[in-house]
Amino acid sequence: MAALTAALPGGRWSTEPSVLAAHATDRSGLPAQGAPAVVVFAEEVDDVRLVLRLAHAHRTPVVVRGAGTGLAGAATATGGEIVLSTARLNRILELSAPDQLAVVQPGVITAELDSAAAEHGLRYAPDPASVAISTIGGNIATNAGGLRCAKYGVTRDSVLGLDVVLADGSLLRTGRRTVKGVAGYDLTGLFVGSEGTLGVVVAATLRLRPVPRSTATLSAHFATVADAAAASSALTAAGLQPAVAELLDGANLEAIDAAQGTALRERGAAWLLVQTDGTGAEAEAALAEDVLTPFARSVRRASDVAEAERLLEVRRLALPSLERRGRVLIEDIAVPRSLLAEAVDEIAAIGRRHDVRVATMAHAGDGNLHPIFGYDGPEVPDAVTRAADEVFRLALRLGGTLTGEHGVGLLKRQWLGDELGEESLALHRRLRTLFDPGGVLNPGKLWSD
Amino acid sequence: MAALTAALPGGRWSTEPSVLAAHATDRSGLPAQGAPAVVVFAEEVDDVRLVLRLAHAHRTPVVVRGAGTGLAGAATATGGEIVLSTARLNRILELSAPDQLAVVQPGVITAELDSAAAEHGLRYAPDPASVAISTIGGNIATNAGGLRCAKYGVTRDSVLGLDVVLADGSLLRTGRRTVKGVAGYDLTGLFVGSEGTLGVVVAATLRLRPVPRSTATLSAHFATVADAAAASSALTAAGLQPAVAELLDGANLEAIDAAQGTALRERGAAWLLVQTDGTGAEAEAALAEDVLTPFARSVRRASDVAEAERLLEVRRLALPSLERRGRVLIEDIAVPRSLLAEAVDEIAAIGRRHDVRVATMAHAGDGNLHPIFGYDGPEVPDAVTRAADEVFRLALRLGGTLTGEHGVGLLKRQWLGDELGEESLALHRRLRTLFDPGGVLNPGKLWSD
Repeated sequence: MAALTAALPGGRWSTEPSVLAAHATDRSGLPAQGAPAVVVFAEEVDDVRLVLRLAHAHRTPVVVRGAGTGLAGAATATGGEIVLSTARLNRILELSAPDQLAVVQPGVITAELDSAAAEHGLRYAPDPASVAISTIGGNIATNAGGLRCAKYGVTRDSVLGLDVVLADGSLLRTGRRTVKGVAGYDLTGLFVGSEGTLGVVVAATLRLRPVPRSTATLSAHFATVADAAAASSALTAAGLQPAVAELLDGANLEAIDAAQGTALRERGAAWLLVQTDGTGAEAEAALAEDVLTPFARSVRRASDVAEAERLLEVRRLALPSLERRGRVLIEDIAVPRSLLAEAVDEIAAIGRRHDVRVATMAHAGDGNLHPIFGYDGPEVPDAVTRAADEVFRLALRLGGTLTGEHGVGLLKRQWLGDELGEESLALHRRLRTLFDPGGVLNPGKLWSD
Repeated sequence: MAALTAALPGGRWSTEPSVLAAHATDRSGLPAQGAPAVVVFAEEVDDVRLVLRLAHAHRTPVVVRGAGTGLAGAATATGGEIVLSTARLNRILELSAPDQLAVVQPGVITAELDSAAAEHGLRYAPDPASVAISTIGGNIATNAGGLRCAKYGVTRDSVLGLDVVLADGSLLRTGRRTVKGVAGYDLTGLFVGSEGTLGVVVAATLRLRPVPRSTATLSAHFATVADAAAASSALTAAGLQPAVAELLDGANLEAIDAAQGTALRERGAAWLLVQTDGTGAEAEAALAEDVLTPFARSVRRASDVAEAERLLEVRRLALPSLERRGRVLIEDIAVPRSLLAEAVDEIAAIGRRHDVRVATMAHAGDGNLHPIFGYDGPEVPDAVTRAADEVFRLALRLGGTLTGEHGVGLLKRQWLGDELGEESLALHRRLRTLFDPGGVLNPGKLWSD
C-alpha cells in the first residue's frame, strides 16, 4: 500500500470506505465477501503496469473492473485486494472508416463506441443488454453477447487484437489490424472471456461493420412456448438468419403487463420478436411471416421504425418489470437450438418443483436462455439455489453450457468442472499459472483455489 | 519403432520408401529435409493416442498430416520422425440440420462435408482454394481461409468444439455444441491454427450455415490495380459486404490468357470479381455495379449461374496458369484493407527490383494478398528469397501480417518473431512447452528450436 500510494499520482487511488464499497460488487446480486484494501483509478497504461508490478512483487490480489455491470461476480471483491478500475482509460484512440476498425481503451462505454462509429455509417456489432452502461473492457473480459449474436457474433468475433498488461507488469500485444491473420497462436481469443484472470486489457483493436441499410420487425404471439420454439426452429429450417429473435415466456409477459399496463399475456403464453436486416430485410421478413404464421396466434409486421423500436423496448422492459416484484437471480444457460422448447418447459417445471418464481427469456436464434428466478428478502433462498443448480444440470444434460454470455465468476464456479471435465479444468489451472505464477489476478474466480 | 509396430494392427503403418517419400512434403514447394522413420495411418482415435503415448515416452517427433495440401511446410518431414496421417479418420459422425452442425473426423475432405450439408440446404462456409482435396483436420490446423471469409469468417469461426489428443496421449474435449458459450478459456481457438504443435484433432464439431437463396456476380476490368483497389474500397465505404471480392493483377491475366487462350489482359491491368449473396443479392449487386462503374473500364453482371461459374473458374485458373510457366512460391500476406493498392504496387516494384516474376491475386474484401513468385529450376533462387523477404517486411511495415491464411510452418518461421515481438514469441514457447513438455509435436515448425 505504501509503495502503491507513493508511486501513484494523487487522485488516482482511494481508501474511502464509501469508494471501497461502491467498487466491491457487480450486478450479479452477490454480496462482497470483504472490503478491498484500495481502489486504483488507472489513467495511463503505466498506472496499470505499476499496480501489477507491485501486486506481483507483494503477492497482493488484483480485481480488475470496468463499469461493474457483470452478472457473474467476476469483479466482486473478496477482501483485502487492490481493485483496479479501468473506467478512466476511456479514450477512443483511433477510428478508421476505410479499415472498419477502432482502437479503444478498455473504459470506453460500449454504446459510446457505437455512436462514434455511427458517424461513419458503421457500428460495433456486439450489443449486450448493458451496452449503455458497460465498458468494452468488461465486454472483452466476459466475451459478452447480446441480441444480435446469432447473425453478427459475440464480442470475440469483433476483437482483432489486444494490448494486455500481464501479471508481472509486462506489456503484450496480440492479434493485428487486419481482418485475417494466422501468424502464431490465437492469444487474442485466450484473453477474451478470461474474466480478469490472465491479464489486464489496456487497449483493443475492434472490428466495425456497416450499419444495415434497412430493418424489418415482426411480433408474433403463441399459445405456448413450445409453439414459439417450434416456429423459431422453422425459421432456422427455412434458412433464415434474423438479426434478432427474442422469445419471452408467459411469466415475462405477466410481469410486463403488471408493471407497464400492457395486455400481452392475454394474446398467448409466448412472444417472439424477430428482426431482419440488410438489403434483404424486407424479403426475409416476408418469408419469416409465412414461416411463423402456421404456429402463431397472431403475427404482425411493424409498420415503421417507431413501432419496431416500441417492440424492442417491450423486450428490454422484461427484466425491469420482473425486478419490480422483488430480487432476481439471472441465469444464462445455452442449449442446442433444437432443444429450446424442452429447455424452457423444463425450467418452468423446475420452478414449480421448488416453488420459486421463474421467467425465461431467450435469444432464440442461438439457444441462449436467461431463466430469471425471483425471490424476496436480502439473501438468495435455498430453494432458488437448488432450482438454479437443477437448471445448470439441465443445460449440461441437453449438451449445453452453464453460461452462454455472462461468464462464470464466483456465481457458477462450483459447476465449471462439471461442464469442462477434470482434464480440461486441470489444463485451465496450468494455463492460469503460466500467465500468472504468483496468483494475483482475480484469484478465486472461475474456480476456487 | 518396435513398440509402435507391435501395438498397431497390420496395414496401419508403413516404412516403404515410396510411402515415406509420398508423406514427407506438402504443397509448399519445400523439399523434405529427411525421410520420416514411419508413416502411421490412424483408423481409430486409439491409434492416435497410442502413437502419442509412445512418442512422448521415447521423445520421438511426430508430424501430423491430413491430405498434405498445406502451403507453408507445417507437415514437411525433417527426418526420422513418425508421420501420423489422419486421412483414414474420414467419417462424418453426425450431421444435425436442426442444430446446423456436424461432428466430423479430421480426415473428412472439406468439399465432402459441404456436399453432405447441401443435402439439408446447408453448407460449410470456409472455402479454401484446396477445398476439393484438403481435409477438415488440415483446415483446422492452419485456420484456413478462402474466398468467402470476409463475409462468412475463417475456419475458426465455424469450429464450435474439438476432441484433441494431447502430447501425452490423453484426450481433451474443448468447446461445445451450442452457438454461444463462455465457460472457461477459449481452448478451441488456441488449437485452431496451431499447426500440429499443441495436439492432434481427432474430432471437430463444426457450424453449418444455410446455403444463400441467391447469388449475383459482377465482373469488372480496370486500367490499373490502383483503380481496382479504389473500387474495392468504395464498395466497403458504401457499406457493402460481398461474399466474394477477388482481385487479379495484370500479370495474372497475362498468364491466364497465355494458358487458356482468353483475352483478359487487353481489357485492363486489373480484374475484380464480385459476388453478393442472400435475399439481398440482387439489390446489393445493383448497388455494387453503381459503385464500381466510375472506377472501371467495364462492369458486367453475369446473366445466369453458368456465366457466374465461368467467371469463378477464371479466378481459379490463375494459379494453374502461372504454374505452366514454371515453379511458383506462393506468399500470403494480409494488410489493412485501405492499403491494398499500395501493397500490390509495392509487390510489383519488389519483383522488378529483384528481376523476378511476380503476380498478385487478392481477397480484396479482407486485404489478403497472394504474391506468386515464379522461377525456373528445382531450387528457389536467392533473388526470389530476397524478394519474399521484402514482401514480408512490407506487410509488417503496413501494419499487416506475414500470413493471412496459409500459416507459418517452416516457410515463414524465420519472420515470425519480427511480427509477434520477443515478448509474444517467448509466451508462445512457454505455451507450447505447457502442452508438450517433451517437444514431440512438430518440433522446428513455427520457430526453430
